[in-house]
Amino acid sequence: MRGAIILFKFIVKGTGFSSIDSKNVKAFENCLFCISEEGTVGAIISPEEKEYQALIKEYSEKNKFQELTHGQFILPGFIDLHIHAPQWAQAGTALDLPLYDWLNTYTFPLEAKFSDRHFAETVYSDLVSQLIKNGTTTALYFATVHRQSSLRLAEICSEKGQRGLVGKVVMDDPEQNPEYYRDATANEALAETELFIQEVLELNKRTPQGVYPVVTPRFIPSCTDDSLKGLGALAAKYDVHIQSHCSESDWAHSFVQERFGKNDAFALNDFGLLTEKAIMAHCGFLSDDDMALFADKGTAVAHCPISNAYFGNAVTPIAKLLNNYKIETGLGSDISGGFSPSLFDNIRQAVISSRMLEDGVDKECCSEKRGVAGSSISLNEAFYLATAGGGESLSLPIGKLAVDYAWDVQIVDSKTLPIFSEEEPLLSIFQKILYLSRPEHIHEVWIQGKKVHDRNRMEVEVQA
Amino acid sequence: MRGAIILFKFIVKGTGFSSIDSKNVKAFENCLFCISEEGTVGAIISPEEKEYQALIKEYSEKNKFQELTHGQFILPGFIDLHIHAPQWAQAGTALDLPLYDWLNTYTFPLEAKFSDRHFAETVYSDLVSQLIKNGTTTALYFATVHRQSSLRLAEICSEKGQRGLVGKVVMDDPEQNPEYYRDATANEALAETELFIQEVLELNKRTPQGVYPVVTPRFIPSCTDDSLKGLGALAAKYDVHIQSHCSESDWAHSFVQERFGKNDAFALNDFGLLTEKAIMAHCGFLSDDDMALFADKGTAVAHCPISNAYFGNAVTPIAKLLNNYKIETGLGSDISGGFSPSLFDNIRQAVISSRMLEDGVDKECCSEKRGVAGSSISLNEAFYLATAGGGESLSLPIGKLAVDYAWDVQIVDSKTLPIFSEEEPLLSIFQKILYLSRPEHIHEVWIQGKKVHDRNRMEVEVQA
Ligand SMILES: [Zn+2]
Ligand SMILES: [Zn+2]
Repeated sequence: MRGAIILFKFIVKGTGFSSIDSKNVKAFENCLFCISEEGTVGAIISPEEKEYQALIKEYSEKNKFQELTHGQFILPGFIDLHIHAPQWAQAGTALDLPLYDWLNTYTFPLEAKFSDRHFAETVYSDLVSQLIKNGTTTALYFATVHRQSSLRLAEICSEKGQRGLVGKVVMDDPEQNPEYYRDATANEALAETELFIQEVLELNKRTPQGVYPVVTPRFIPSCTDDSLKGLGALAAKYDVHIQSHCSESDWAHSFVQERFGKNDAFALNDFGLLTEKAIMAHCGFLSDDDMALFADKGTAVAHCPISNAYFGNAVTPIAKLLNNYKIETGLGSDISGGFSPSLFDNIRQAVISSRMLEDGVDKECCSEKRGVAGSSISLNEAFYLATAGGGESLSLPIGKLAVDYAWDVQIVDSKTLPIFSEEEPLLSIFQKILYLSRPEHIHEVWIQGKKVHDRNRMEVEVQA
Repeated sequence: MRGAIILFKFIVKGTGFSSIDSKNVKAFENCLFCISEEGTVGAIISPEEKEYQALIKEYSEKNKFQELTHGQFILPGFIDLHIHAPQWAQAGTALDLPLYDWLNTYTFPLEAKFSDRHFAETVYSDLVSQLIKNGTTTALYFATVHRQSSLRLAEICSEKGQRGLVGKVVMDDPEQNPEYYRDATANEALAETELFIQEVLELNKRTPQGVYPVVTPRFIPSCTDDSLKGLGALAAKYDVHIQSHCSESDWAHSFVQERFGKNDAFALNDFGLLTEKAIMAHCGFLSDDDMALFADKGTAVAHCPISNAYFGNAVTPIAKLLNNYKIETGLGSDISGGFSPSLFDNIRQAVISSRMLEDGVDKECCSEKRGVAGSSISLNEAFYLATAGGGESLSLPIGKLAVDYAWDVQIVDSKTLPIFSEEEPLLSIFQKILYLSRPEHIHEVWIQGKKVHDRNRMEVEVQA
């Protein structure tokens, strides 16, 4: 703007909400969001600016102007920082066992079925569509050990227009994994991972919104030293993202202590797996030293509050991660340790769990000793985790309404929310949207400047 | 059946789920639910029974037969055992303060506006419609101090076909309640309550599904001894339901201890307010003696797990109430202390909160001391709370698929749930429905044998 001639692909006029930092949300009231040919935000023009009316006129005449209807609002698309795609088939079930038993009784048998490409196609295809309808514009996926069906997941993301980061899971320790579901050897796991990285990097070249390969040791207990070391080397060689589980439960935490005499964080770091592009799920049992190491390395935490209530054995101290250690932190559904594909649900549970950590749970303790003071997070902070915090964790320009960020948004219709006054303050509407929205309130979803969901048409379409 | 000639109003063929006790759920597979003229279940006929085919033929010919489509399932309608109807206008906002401040800063000013009957009409009308769409077929409402708009809430329930139990709130202590929002005197509070009881009993005579007046001291801190005593007498005189808040938070609990030198339960009992028809919300701080008194009196607990995370300061020990004391217990949304009108959401949070009480929240405690063993409840138990447990709490024949119970049901469509096999066991589908359903999955809602919501028509209709 400012005199220069810039051509936009289209302009959207509406009111949007975006985090400006972990604590504060800004309302962009009746702004023009000017979208570039590349699908990024080229400019945000507010009604006071002099180009405002001219732009509306120009882009209306070119038929490249969309004005939100009354009651519609723009939110950044959600970033799901931890989700096991194959486990979508058991979402909402099998939540009655502790982690170790849950893996062996339900989860490994299910994941083993993804050697069947037809089954993988059915489940992955449904999951990606459902996530898009839930407003999730970017997801960091665990697939399975199978390279080919993991690649198919990346292709489905590419086809449906979602920004997907996908990992072929590595779990090669014959003592910790069942015969029917594991990598045959460390060498084979590494060879398959390297091939997978190359294939997805190739796919990314023809995917405007981006698909990314992710080095994915399941967690330390399932991997040999050889595979962990090799995966760290591959991540460095290709400069790709890394994901794993870290200090999730009493059991997992103790297992790593016994094997290495140190916590997960330092063990992962020894293998080169704690990098700026690494995202570690759960992290409920990080010590202060672990947190300092995360901060130092720029490694991010994927907080999964629903799942943690089932498998975490404690609440991850998010306020401490954010405020005391400035660790990059985002939000994960952790399907199917968590049952909900909606990050709206996870935002709510993040606030609730933090309040329960703050207040404590057992009335037999006096109120002073019951909880951990300073633990509660605000709704704004939980929203930040699901959006801008996720973008920072992935080192991608996503999760905010801001210039040069991807136009990854959900347009939410507040018509059926309990709003009874035309004078309701915008930030109060924002709270009602976060606490009360369901997928049926999400009217449109856009990723990298393309509309990938339109509730009116009730079908996913990727515009050319 | 069995030879006798009985005429049903209509028959529904389908698969339904119902609690048979607090721990066990029964699947009624492909049964005929035969509905009487009064809107109750006259018979449930399974495919093995000899009348099965003849009934289908007969009622099909009479055009009084409905067969659920593939993927549809019947659940009992939900019973919301604690909800503040006026607070619907602030649902999802104002959750940042402790209870005492929350009441005075946000809630009392909002409730005071319900002296405006037009505002009351708008909010109550929207709320009752929304609750029906959420599968809530019975609700136990706090209205406000205003008799006339409280009566209007009962009328709206009557008109829209919902079973409503409604209380005109009493809060008369001039030292504890603001000048702009309270009963002028104890005598006036009692006179208005008695008139309200008479008016609602009159309305009930022309309401097939039932509307009921409820004696409603807000909670002990807001009432004088005179009003508490008088309300106990009124409840006895008219044999009506009673509702209040009991031992909700550290603050409320301590307030009553200071005033009476005893816990809420014993104080309420002294005023005749702990009866078989009484339902007390929250109860997070009941002592063992309090629990024994509840069990002895037959008084019920309305568990509000979402709200408790914001205002409860501890998790209500539901497993102990159910298993050790056999106290009647149901589930409440507690709008707007809780943000969600959906009892699906509250079922999920009831399970999650119980697991957090079991495991504890603070990793700094060793795993043995962190939580309270034996506290977690199953999904079946949470479902029981939302259905059969609510019916038992209200002493009404609702909340189960069973003969002589009201045909209060929600028909849920599982089509878009993650079910990928025709062989998925029924109880696994049941879990997916409970964990993943949203209002958009609720296809039809029936109350007392009348269809009050049909998603296909997308409008509420009360059939004549
Ligand atoms: Zn995980
Ligand atoms: Zn309440």
